[in-house]
Amino acid sequence: MSDSIIEFTTQIRTFVDARDWRQFHAPKELAVAITAEAGELLQHFVWQTPAQSEQRARERRDEIAGEMADVGILLFELADNLGLDLAEIMRAKLAKNELRYPVEKSRGSNKKYNEL
Amino acid sequence: MSDSIIEFTTQIRTFVDARDWRQFHAPKELAVAITAEAGELLQHFVWQTPAQSEQRARERRDEIAGEMADVGILLFELADNLGLDLAEIMRAKLAKNELRYPVEKSRGSNKKYNEL
Amino acid sequence: MSDSIIEFTTQIRTFVDARDWRQFHAPKELAVAITAEAGELLQHFVWQTPAQSEQRARERRDEIAGEMADVGILLFELADNLGLDLAEIMRAKLAKNELRYPVEKSRGSNKKYNEL
Amino acid sequence: MSDSIIEFTTQIRTFVDARDWRQFHAPKELAVAITAEAGELLQHFVWQTPAQSEQRARERRDEIAGEMADVGILLFELADNLGLDLAEIMRAKLAKNELRYPVEKSRGSNKKYNEL
Repeated sequence: MSDSIIEFTTQIRTFVDARDWRQFHAPKELAVAITAEAGELLQHFVWQTPAQSEQRARERRDEIAGEMADVGILLFELADNLGLDLAEIMRAKLAKNELRYPVEKSRGSNKKYNEL
Repeated sequence: MSDSIIEFTTQIRTFVDARDWRQFHAPKELAVAITAEAGELLQHFVWQTPAQSEQRARERRDEIAGEMADVGILLFELADNLGLDLAEIMRAKLAKNELRYPVEKSRGSNKKYNEL
Repeated sequence: MSDSIIEFTTQIRTFVDARDWRQFHAPKELAVAITAEAGELLQHFVWQTPAQSEQRARERRDEIAGEMADVGILLFELADNLGLDLAEIMRAKLAKNELRYPVEKSRGSNKKYNEL
Repeated sequence: MSDSIIEFTTQIRTFVDARDWRQFHAPKELAVAITAEAGELLQHFVWQTPAQSEQRARERRDEIAGEMADVGILLFELADNLGLDLAEIMRAKLAKNELRYPVEKSRGSNKKYNEL
């Protein structure tokens, strides 16, 4: 089974184009959909204490996985739509984060890089 | 360069654990961060007409790519944190969407599956 | 029937305190809930064209009103929780917007104040 | 100084109409803007522990108040745009919540009404 970002992206593009959905899926619309799906993911944890959140993550595992899959599929599609290589931009951001958050300064700290 | 979801996930886990950040990155906190980053992505398109949105997506390509990378990195981390295989849950959702949105019924339509 | 922000705020505080919910409703938790409810509001418009959105706003009027009420109630509660007078901070922001968006420069334009 | 929801709503409508912004502020666009502003509010609390969140709410009081004012102004405008009386829909939701969350069943509990 594939684990490749590009292969998923191709599969998603094929799915969208087979339905002639590109007309609805402009970048703004994809950003709207990603945020709405992220909101559904967040909804599972509203008011929940840390302990309750852990329990809920187990009990509602399939629903939460479904919301996460929606976010992922839309994110892959948006990257493709914008001609961005998602693997490359994630790699670039991870490299940036390595510089922004040096291990010795950021270990055990939840400060933002500009507050370290 | 790797294009594998699992390899990115491992790299992200290593980054987080090297900084002892798991204490801050409970599932709820990751869902909060994903939604906040999605909001930053959306912010680029507020009030923009379709034509302006296309232009903005080109002009602010790097910033938008950065927000998308943040969403992706956090999503991969959340899947790992919950013991979910992101590739598998995306594959399952894509299969579900194939059933929910048969090509002949959904071509050229932006109706939800339960309204088709 | 009251139309006063302060009276609604008092009513909401009474509701919350009668249930001893302040322990769950810290500022962060209220911000999480507001964002999740805003996401539910947004969900009604995902993929919808302008014409469809107008139609949906009519057809789902009660549901949409319900999501909006949730955002409003939580926003009033958050202001109260932080010791902020919502009317005052809205008045201050409206005054700021008058300066940021002078009528002659911003009429018919959807540019942000720092782009005008 | 006014504390009336209707007076604020009138003031916001006057502001928007003086700039001929109604063309950009369709209901969907207002929902997008509300969610993006809620995301900015949430951004202040990402990764923050409860104690840090309380401190941040004090230290960044003005910024947080500004994000809240944005959410409020947009929410009032959306209600007006949809011909909804925000005070009325909040009153209706508060009455519904009184029924959904009877004091004796919900005191000290963060369960949703359908889980009580």
